[in-house]
Amino acid sequence: MTLRIAVGTAGPALGRAVAAGLYTEPAVTSVERFPDGELRPVVHGVRGADVYLVQPTGPPVNEHVMELLLLLDACRRGGAARLTAVVPYFGYARQDRRGRAGEAIGIRVVADALASAGARRLIVVDPHTAALEAVCAMPVEMLTAVPVLAAALGERTVDDAVVVAPDLGAVKLAERYAALLSRPVAVVRKTRLSGTRVSAEELVGDVRGRQAVVVDDMISTGGTIEAAVHVLLENGAIPPVLVAATHGLFVPPAAERLGGPRIAALLVTDSLPQDAPTTLPIRVCPSAPLLADAIGRLHRDESLDDLLFRT
Amino acid sequence: MTLRIAVGTAGPALGRAVAAGLYTEPAVTSVERFPDGELRPVVHGVRGADVYLVQPTGPPVNEHVMELLLLLDACRRGGAARLTAVVPYFGYARQDRRGRAGEAIGIRVVADALASAGARRLIVVDPHTAALEAVCAMPVEMLTAVPVLAAALGERTVDDAVVVAPDLGAVKLAERYAALLSRPVAVVRKTRLSGTRVSAEELVGDVRGRQAVVVDDMISTGGTIEAAVHVLLENGAIPPVLVAATHGLFVPPAAERLGGPRIAALLVTDSLPQDAPTTLPIRVCPSAPLLADAIGRLHRDESLDDLLFRT
Amino acid sequence: MTLRIAVGTAGPALGRAVAAGLYTEPAVTSVERFPDGELRPVVHGVRGADVYLVQPTGPPVNEHVMELLLLLDACRRGGAARLTAVVPYFGYARQDRRGRAGEAIGIRVVADALASAGARRLIVVDPHTAALEAVCAMPVEMLTAVPVLAAALGERTVDDAVVVAPDLGAVKLAERYAALLSRPVAVVRKTRLSGTRVSAEELVGDVRGRQAVVVDDMISTGGTIEAAVHVLLENGAIPPVLVAATHGLFVPPAAERLGGPRIAALLVTDSLPQDAPTTLPIRVCPSAPLLADAIGRLHRDESLDDLLFRT
Amino acid sequence: MTLRIAVGTAGPALGRAVAAGLYTEPAVTSVERFPDGELRPVVHGVRGADVYLVQPTGPPVNEHVMELLLLLDACRRGGAARLTAVVPYFGYARQDRRGRAGEAIGIRVVADALASAGARRLIVVDPHTAALEAVCAMPVEMLTAVPVLAAALGERTVDDAVVVAPDLGAVKLAERYAALLSRPVAVVRKTRLSGTRVSAEELVGDVRGRQAVVVDDMISTGGTIEAAVHVLLENGAIPPVLVAATHGLFVPPAAERLGGPRIAALLVTDSLPQDAPTTLPIRVCPSAPLLADAIGRLHRDESLDDLLFRT
Amino acid sequence: MTLRIAVGTAGPALGRAVAAGLYTEPAVTSVERFPDGELRPVVHGVRGADVYLVQPTGPPVNEHVMELLLLLDACRRGGAARLTAVVPYFGYARQDRRGRAGEAIGIRVVADALASAGARRLIVVDPHTAALEAVCAMPVEMLTAVPVLAAALGERTVDDAVVVAPDLGAVKLAERYAALLSRPVAVVRKTRLSGTRVSAEELVGDVRGRQAVVVDDMISTGGTIEAAVHVLLENGAIPPVLVAATHGLFVPPAAERLGGPRIAALLVTDSLPQDAPTTLPIRVCPSAPLLADAIGRLHRDESLDDLLFRT
Amino acid sequence: MTLRIAVGTAGPALGRAVAAGLYTEPAVTSVERFPDGELRPVVHGVRGADVYLVQPTGPPVNEHVMELLLLLDACRRGGAARLTAVVPYFGYARQDRRGRAGEAIGIRVVADALASAGARRLIVVDPHTAALEAVCAMPVEMLTAVPVLAAALGERTVDDAVVVAPDLGAVKLAERYAALLSRPVAVVRKTRLSGTRVSAEELVGDVRGRQAVVVDDMISTGGTIEAAVHVLLENGAIPPVLVAATHGLFVPPAAERLGGPRIAALLVTDSLPQDAPTTLPIRVCPSAPLLADAIGRLHRDESLDDLLFRT
Repeated sequence: MTLRIAVGTAGPALGRAVAAGLYTEPAVTSVERFPDGELRPVVHGVRGADVYLVQPTGPPVNEHVMELLLLLDACRRGGAARLTAVVPYFGYARQDRRGRAGEAIGIRVVADALASAGARRLIVVDPHTAALEAVCAMPVEMLTAVPVLAAALGERTVDDAVVVAPDLGAVKLAERYAALLSRPVAVVRKTRLSGTRVSAEELVGDVRGRQAVVVDDMISTGGTIEAAVHVLLENGAIPPVLVAATHGLFVPPAAERLGGPRIAALLVTDSLPQDAPTTLPIRVCPSAPLLADAIGRLHRDESLDDLLFRT
Repeated sequence: MTLRIAVGTAGPALGRAVAAGLYTEPAVTSVERFPDGELRPVVHGVRGADVYLVQPTGPPVNEHVMELLLLLDACRRGGAARLTAVVPYFGYARQDRRGRAGEAIGIRVVADALASAGARRLIVVDPHTAALEAVCAMPVEMLTAVPVLAAALGERTVDDAVVVAPDLGAVKLAERYAALLSRPVAVVRKTRLSGTRVSAEELVGDVRGRQAVVVDDMISTGGTIEAAVHVLLENGAIPPVLVAATHGLFVPPAAERLGGPRIAALLVTDSLPQDAPTTLPIRVCPSAPLLADAIGRLHRDESLDDLLFRT
Repeated sequence: MTLRIAVGTAGPALGRAVAAGLYTEPAVTSVERFPDGELRPVVHGVRGADVYLVQPTGPPVNEHVMELLLLLDACRRGGAARLTAVVPYFGYARQDRRGRAGEAIGIRVVADALASAGARRLIVVDPHTAALEAVCAMPVEMLTAVPVLAAALGERTVDDAVVVAPDLGAVKLAERYAALLSRPVAVVRKTRLSGTRVSAEELVGDVRGRQAVVVDDMISTGGTIEAAVHVLLENGAIPPVLVAATHGLFVPPAAERLGGPRIAALLVTDSLPQDAPTTLPIRVCPSAPLLADAIGRLHRDESLDDLLFRT
Repeated sequence: MTLRIAVGTAGPALGRAVAAGLYTEPAVTSVERFPDGELRPVVHGVRGADVYLVQPTGPPVNEHVMELLLLLDACRRGGAARLTAVVPYFGYARQDRRGRAGEAIGIRVVADALASAGARRLIVVDPHTAALEAVCAMPVEMLTAVPVLAAALGERTVDDAVVVAPDLGAVKLAERYAALLSRPVAVVRKTRLSGTRVSAEELVGDVRGRQAVVVDDMISTGGTIEAAVHVLLENGAIPPVLVAATHGLFVPPAAERLGGPRIAALLVTDSLPQDAPTTLPIRVCPSAPLLADAIGRLHRDESLDDLLFRT
Repeated sequence: MTLRIAVGTAGPALGRAVAAGLYTEPAVTSVERFPDGELRPVVHGVRGADVYLVQPTGPPVNEHVMELLLLLDACRRGGAARLTAVVPYFGYARQDRRGRAGEAIGIRVVADALASAGARRLIVVDPHTAALEAVCAMPVEMLTAVPVLAAALGERTVDDAVVVAPDLGAVKLAERYAALLSRPVAVVRKTRLSGTRVSAEELVGDVRGRQAVVVDDMISTGGTIEAAVHVLLENGAIPPVLVAATHGLFVPPAAERLGGPRIAALLVTDSLPQDAPTTLPIRVCPSAPLLADAIGRLHRDESLDDLLFRT
Repeated sequence: MTLRIAVGTAGPALGRAVAAGLYTEPAVTSVERFPDGELRPVVHGVRGADVYLVQPTGPPVNEHVMELLLLLDACRRGGAARLTAVVPYFGYARQDRRGRAGEAIGIRVVADALASAGARRLIVVDPHTAALEAVCAMPVEMLTAVPVLAAALGERTVDDAVVVAPDLGAVKLAERYAALLSRPVAVVRKTRLSGTRVSAEELVGDVRGRQAVVVDDMISTGGTIEAAVHVLLENGAIPPVLVAATHGLFVPPAAERLGGPRIAALLVTDSLPQDAPTTLPIRVCPSAPLLADAIGRLHRDESLDDLLFRT
């Protein structure tokens, strides 16, 4: 069975890099957009192949999800023997429960649509919720870019640096970073000092006089990071702060929130394209080697346990 | 079982008009858009109800399809007893076959996603392909706005007017208009004069010295209509020409193609919102009465055969 | 994976010819009929194989559909690794919409039954509706016999012959023939001269003094062809007329309608058996080479784009 | 929810009798047959109704199964709120395992096709295999006509009559008859006297000088009954013998096998039409009261346990 | 539609209390156990009813899950019009991801089996993972017993008490309790002081000289609670500690871990039976009123938003 | 594709023997049991493999079924390319119909759960009902251990021995044994001498002065066997009797019923573990060679018709 990488328009450079990392040319793919906005994807050369379709679903998320569905259908009808959706950033992953009455569960809607469009396996990187694989009927390989980012952080951190989780949801991630960096963990969390007083950000752990490395799975508008940096500096961390996250969406007002001298660098992977001009100190760690490694192993039926995030 | 109309953001005025036509308040619905573009729809008051969710999927089609899927999921999980998607304009209906190698079949991708998100019945108006109901596993009621538009045309057409199908796909529609208007049909078609000569638009039927009424199911960029008008005037039709279509998308360069004195009026329904400022002579026929009539009958388990387009 | 051709009773000669064209023996298959009419198909030698089950669903269509379902089940349970239904003539394809209230959609009923019986891919030839592939959940390869028939026509047509579509539904097919034969197209269509007068057959295009070649996807009772021939001769075409169609059902009263000197030859493929004694001037073009070519390519995971009918 | 009886062409008199038993007019149904054998069923008045579609699948079984599938689809798309297939005689029930290599499992093929065509519940009478309800995903109510037939037998049997199962598969049925008639059971079975000698019919139980009542679920070609009668008379039963079975197919050579003075009467229900002229002493017990009773209870959500066959 | 409560053997008292709270008799249900351990459940009186089947899946969890599946099948085949599984404690909820290579995702296995056995809706109480509703295809209502338990705690807590989350996963729950009790929150968490030193339990927040109330969703072997109590007392909390959790499994060695004077009371609901003799200071808050309230509202198609846990 | 045998805890010795018979090491599998009874299976080395998961579902049946489901899920998510459940003894097979009102159909519940957990093929040995393969959507290979047991019996039986079916359901099995052993068949059956007298066990066939060999598919509590032995000895069979069955559950009170001098030996296979200490004269015939043979053929895509039980 031939290995074939197909690439959507949501991450063309990433897709090409993944293909190059596997010493193969991507399948010839095009996605025409009609004047009324309907997409017409075309995929060639997938018949009988082991196809990996690379399409992160970052903004514009709805366009990218629909394109992904159409590309999957094109691959399936075009004769792909095995069809794996490679969605490094998986949008709608935060909608994994109804936080308020009357909501939808977006993660499930997308998961079901992927399956009905033909995906038989899914590869993601550091999804927002680890339950993603329970939400999907198909097998999911949840890769982690933490080692890649930790290695890049290692060159920039001093010995007494502290890894900081900007909220409770990021603690396990922070512990993973901390283990790789041999550094302690601190946690910022919203706390309710008493039933009658309002909530406030609280720092758990000691950062006074030390370098702080804030880590998260994704940076969207930068609100969580901004609040964490504020608390850290108030608690005596030495500026500037380092920030690392697998996925960098940087949607407005991220530029306002994360700009300025308080943040030394924002390390992210290229799970989402980082080619827009920006004043932010974004540093991009390539995720293509990780994806190529995982895809190669899946294609050759090898284990990829050491590439996965386990909690 | 209570009747409940829920309304997405793709056609709010239409949805409200449908609800008003049924003497009911629409369900309280909101669709928040996060900064990264993810949608968070909320639907209240659907538990135990017979819910009709109104959402045409015109441009931006991918946004509107995804919102439709999420709203369906919200209705389903919120306890709707019966859930009918009301999609007056059904996007991606032209992708009902692979016109070239490697394509997807968008109509099926959307149909399957609707079903997996929870739709159990579908109402559309004059879909681009009559096979839509064979493409959907769920029952589909294919309403027609032709009588509504024909009535409006009737006031504007002279006795010797000719109904014109701008291509072969529109002939059955034109015959339906012609029967209602008691007028003859002419057809414009691309023809291949011989195997070696290039194709050209050809007029079948006589329009010389007569008023021409071009009818189609939809107007997108206006290319088909523009070409038909050109042929009609070349063949002696008396300008200006009347145009009628169920769905008016009017995406660029429709304004350039259909502007000017050659076209007297463009009659369309409000299956898609027609509230954008335009220089085109668009005349809008309300489709809410048709939809309200159909929904009311379905809710009361009555026949709606006379509202359907049969070929 | 071994290639294996299995053959139902609806087209045994065709199935054997397909197998021979692929240099293979058909799987040992038998279909016993119990005295009460129940079928007991038996298939041997399909375990682990890439199985192509050849069964057109011409008359008696219900017998042949049921046999196809049972054979698929036998192949699936017998261990076929890949199971493709090869249905050169696909019955019930005209029921792709509810033409009147209360009807079924036969094409979908059959498509769903094929899938639930185990078919994972479908090969058809010139189906009556191009939306067939949107109706089927499984991938469908829609082959075309037009080149085969056009080649056979080429030997019989004079230089100024005209290709004639006997109704609007056949125009695209006629254009395909015309392109291959380098001839112009004329169209017969039912027209409504005005709202008050009755309809009549109308000829679009000039056939006076020329040879006419009527083409269609199928000939059932011959009514459409008979009417077209009548119009053509009335409009001055030189008799006799040539007729070509992919599928020849020739059910009564076809012999009465199409007999006599007005028709020189009826060219059809053997998608349906043409071995019944007949007075009609039927000429059979073998479709086995086309099917064998397509099957061979699918088995070897090669592209078959040039064998498909694209509209 | 309105009760509605729809009737296929396989048992029109039975269907009308069922409707009459429920004091309702059957839905207006027609099944047109095209010249090429394709069926076009039309069903009116089922929207919102609790529909019971009566269609036994006796010979020609494949025609009747396909018609049943199309009628189900028509009811489903026509808006039936609840759709129950009433198949008094369920064809292909004997194919509940692969008796030889390479066979299909016809009972499952039919069961799956019914479900995918829209049946949500199934009513049958004395199916050949009690596992039918395990084979179907949908709930199945397996009614029994044994009390009806036993009552009719009661008037014809003398006090010392013996109920005879003509093979092992009929023993439980015979015991049910025997309990209702307060008579003992005898069994005819094929036996292998030793490993080297050929098999022979053997009688278990004593019938000498007594009236014999042979009972079975169905009579097809009459072979089993004929052999049993032969054994019974050889063992001294007093001729003529009585025979009872729920389903009378009487396909050739049943008339030859079961004619003559050895058999006094063949009691069957009208689960299959018994209106063909015959020389056989067939006596028909109406099954419509049983079916109407069961349907009425299901419609009113009442228990029908006492109508079922339990083993 | 009649309301009907069916009760499995996993929580008979709870089920009866729920039925009593709805002023109805439970359906007559029995679950026979064959000598080989196979279960034979029997359910009466569900035809046409709106059935709520109460069966928590605590230990022995596999027995109770299988019984639940069989009971669902019995209800479905017995004609339940609407079938809701009420699983106050949902076992296997912790297996919502593969924590190590080669694991299963038990929560999904159970969710899919429930759906295939016939459950169309699910009611749970305080599930271990809020993603449960994304894991299930069917709508899930996730009730919370926190208000019930908080009310019981309120009578036992002094003014300066502190609500304690025994690990990070319980923080949101603790905040919910704290809001209801108007008390602050402290958190116990495993921390890694540095990359080279071993982990230890750490207390975030101040409990010195105060009463501590440890809250969690469930108590299994008591390990987490025991460790938290140890840390709290080490940090100066005034013994004894109060403990509250929705689900009390108390499997060995819970009696050893949680006995003694350090814990004043263990408040749990009766989501799992608490009728085993024990030396632990278990105090049981009835959950039947909550379940009866929720079921009553669902049956009457009313909103139950205020009964749900939202995060 | 690599062959891989995975082994659950229900038959570890059998699984290892099967693997050994195929000259392969079993996959590394472990099944941890948490203190609350939840199972945590782990499977390694199945990626890309042709996996055969050996797990009979004897007592404790519910534990073993749930473990089987979880192991299937683990194999599926772990990347098994082909996944076959090998369930030598298939529990719940007797629940193939609702014997009384309100029951479930356990065989179907289990079959559906296996499919939804990931099994794509099933191998069983001598299932209690031959309709098992019609109940399962997936292909089922029903092997028979009768030749193995018959060979073992052959060494112990004298020339004039009689094979005895202990009830009607075992007659076909007995005939299969008898054919292999060249012995005649006798049958024990419950009979109703007349409608008013009570039932009694009756012997059909002559065993006076001969050795009797009672055969059945399974021995559970031994009640059927005990009753048959009683009838045989009453009818003059020479004690002790031989007994053979494929599956030996021997659940209480089997030891009491089958102990003592009346039974010379109980021959069973190791489809279920026979390693418990017992006073019964159990003789175990290995079934691993049969299973290994079948698995090897399936893996190599060879026919296994001669290993199957055909009726």
